[in-house]
Amino acid sequence: MDKSERHEKRMKRQKQVVDDSIKQADKDKGLLLVITGNGKGKSSSGFGMVARALGHNMRVGVVQFIKGAFSTGEEAFFRRFPDDVEYHVMGDGFTWDTQNLQQDIASAEAGWQVCKQLLTDPKIDIVLFDELNIVLKMHYLDTENVLADLAKRPAMQHVIITGRGAPQALIDAADTVSKIEDIKHAFRDGIQAQKGIEL
Amino acid sequence: MDKSERHEKRMKRQKQVVDDSIKQADKDKGLLLVITGNGKGKSSSGFGMVARALGHNMRVGVVQFIKGAFSTGEEAFFRRFPDDVEYHVMGDGFTWDTQNLQQDIASAEAGWQVCKQLLTDPKIDIVLFDELNIVLKMHYLDTENVLADLAKRPAMQHVIITGRGAPQALIDAADTVSKIEDIKHAFRDGIQAQKGIEL
Repeated sequence: MDKSERHEKRMKRQKQVVDDSIKQADKDKGLLLVITGNGKGKSSSGFGMVARALGHNMRVGVVQFIKGAFSTGEEAFFRRFPDDVEYHVMGDGFTWDTQNLQQDIASAEAGWQVCKQLLTDPKIDIVLFDELNIVLKMHYLDTENVLADLAKRPAMQHVIITGRGAPQALIDAADTVSKIEDIKHAFRDGIQAQKGIEL
Repeated sequence: MDKSERHEKRMKRQKQVVDDSIKQADKDKGLLLVITGNGKGKSSSGFGMVARALGHNMRVGVVQFIKGAFSTGEEAFFRRFPDDVEYHVMGDGFTWDTQNLQQDIASAEAGWQVCKQLLTDPKIDIVLFDELNIVLKMHYLDTENVLADLAKRPAMQHVIITGRGAPQALIDAADTVSKIEDIKHAFRDGIQAQKGIEL
């Protein structure tokens, strides 16, 4: 048997495995998806799914919790589609910029009120709560309350939550969880945040 | 010292650390960014950066290597901006669908010719080679040749390469590398791929 035949045989076997597993996965559900870890790509992954959803003409809600002080490319871009994307920026920059616990908590609570509106709106197909994990990790919001509100959302609504330090209770409640490991980062080589990549 | 004061002090210290590290990171460079691992979010992370770049009015090139057989949301969406996004879909589905080694290699080589055109075009600010890692892992393309072509690109052009199984030589050459770990996936609970999330 030559290389091509071996390849064909191996791939046929793999196709069988994949086909079988696709057959057993036949349910639809509004997913709770958590993207955490210290590596680069958490928010961008969430925004990639926003783009994907728009490609299917779905309606999207975005709430950004921490990056309020930045003017970011994703905000500039997705605000171009106000009929399809409800875009909210909460928060007053990174927490170490404000240095004010009460202000951060008030900002987090105001943010969650906006989230709750999206979570009770059946016209919204998919929501992205960007950097919410950090807010939970800092205990600016109560994770149990957040989980209770998430559980009450429309059955087919997808929720994506990003940020480092996702609490275990959120991971337990989620359908899909990805943890992004920081193998290396250009920043440590003295390269500043680049437009289109980090900004 | 009450909780608020402790918080303020801790955050001031953290701000100092962050400010110092931002000060030392003052270089600009076209980044080589690799997103690998088995978890969900690699391609979507790349597409999120495409959106971010478009928010800065940058010009983008996309080459999708493996997902040619799928009609995906990201393709439907980003093809709406032909003046800003040069979008190419190569490949004939996942490799276990074709089961034909020669066809896969030919398809990979044709794909790389398109990549090389983008890598020699100074008007393209950022390129995404989606699922290229798999192509390299399967040895459909020679990693050393790919690295040589990447090294010759315009100095400020950013390159994002996604897919599981990134070869070590590519990781070594990259500026930023994220590895996405699969903590859990809805698919294993019998939930099929959902529009806006996986499709």
